[in-house]
Amino acid sequence: MQLYSYFRSSASYRVRIALNLKGLAFETVPVHLLRNGGEQLTPEYRKLNADGLVPVLTDEKGDGEPAVLAQSLAIIEYLEEKYPRPALLPDNPVDRAYVRSLALSIACDIHPLNNLRVLRYLVRNLKISEEDKNSWYRHWCEQGLAAMERNLASAGKSGLFCFGDIPGLADCCLVPQIANAQRLECDLSNMPTIMRINDACLALEAFATAAPARQPDAE
Amino acid sequence: MQLYSYFRSSASYRVRIALNLKGLAFETVPVHLLRNGGEQLTPEYRKLNADGLVPVLTDEKGDGEPAVLAQSLAIIEYLEEKYPRPALLPDNPVDRAYVRSLALSIACDIHPLNNLRVLRYLVRNLKISEEDKNSWYRHWCEQGLAAMERNLASAGKSGLFCFGDIPGLADCCLVPQIANAQRLECDLSNMPTIMRINDACLALEAFATAAPARQPDAE
Repeated sequence: MQLYSYFRSSASYRVRIALNLKGLAFETVPVHLLRNGGEQLTPEYRKLNADGLVPVLTDEKGDGEPAVLAQSLAIIEYLEEKYPRPALLPDNPVDRAYVRSLALSIACDIHPLNNLRVLRYLVRNLKISEEDKNSWYRHWCEQGLAAMERNLASAGKSGLFCFGDIPGLADCCLVPQIANAQRLECDLSNMPTIMRINDACLALEAFATAAPARQPDAE
Repeated sequence: MQLYSYFRSSASYRVRIALNLKGLAFETVPVHLLRNGGEQLTPEYRKLNADGLVPVLTDEKGDGEPAVLAQSLAIIEYLEEKYPRPALLPDNPVDRAYVRSLALSIACDIHPLNNLRVLRYLVRNLKISEEDKNSWYRHWCEQGLAAMERNLASAGKSGLFCFGDIPGLADCCLVPQIANAQRLECDLSNMPTIMRINDACLALEAFATAAPARQPDAE
């Protein structure tokens, strides 16, 4: 398998964790989002992924042609179906929906607003100040993570990790989002549950080796 | 089943289509996003969904307590697992990942940027003009749909619908996004594939009855 990714991309980070949790070996193909006007926007990369976004995972289908997969959550669902053990989702539909909703609350309600291309648009097109840009970033990140903290507390389903004592899909999304939040100095002081889970995750090799600083393209 | 939703919410619209495609009866519980400072933000609603977002679906688990499900894509995956026929996803993992990636490219890369709360932040906090707000909206919508058009064309997997000749998860996301795009007068003139699929969908009762104008809370 090959993972086209950028060390700091949190969507790439999610997939690295999932691959590691499942014990699947992969080769990193770095795609530098800032260099050369963005390597993800080259015609060559767009042949892999018309969206011009990382990550992309390639996997052998067995017929000689590799499968080319985009969108981090679709990639992780694919891994879950193709390589089911260890599972990243619980067994029953209601619990699976709960874990997916946690993952989506990060992937849809926080991360897209703080993506590089969005921050660029705010600065270049809307001419907002550096200070306003950082306030925007922190606003969505803090509001979204606070909602997740409330969700985790009220559902009463977390254990060592977001769902029980086995790391899974929601943890794959949470840890990269916390890394972003810390990099931008968000206020995480009133989020004991998610910070406890973050610490438990980072103590695992699967999460630690997926961290941006440990990637071959890290700067 | 009860669907807590707002007629114009495109995430709610996705779930309505999925429920209709599966022939599942549901009761609409209107949550007005604009009235009373936003009914989705009341303490009562937040007990259902800490995120303060629509939709929420409730379904009987069989033990007396209803399951309470949030996040449109997690809800649709739940419906797919609990009520598998007719299927909204293809059979094999690679095709399933492809269809999910189309759905996520709308749910993660377009819709969150044009959400009501985000547009409000742009106007109220960043003080951008009405014109800049509309340009922002059209930028993400047109860019995202153009990428989807390229994806559909290059994958060569569309038929009458996004994947083959049976409507599914990607169509559940596409049609509400096109409705939004048209409401905001986005330029969809160079998107023959997605517009053809949109027309085919809207000719089906399952999509037509899910439209915002057909909901009990429509204004």
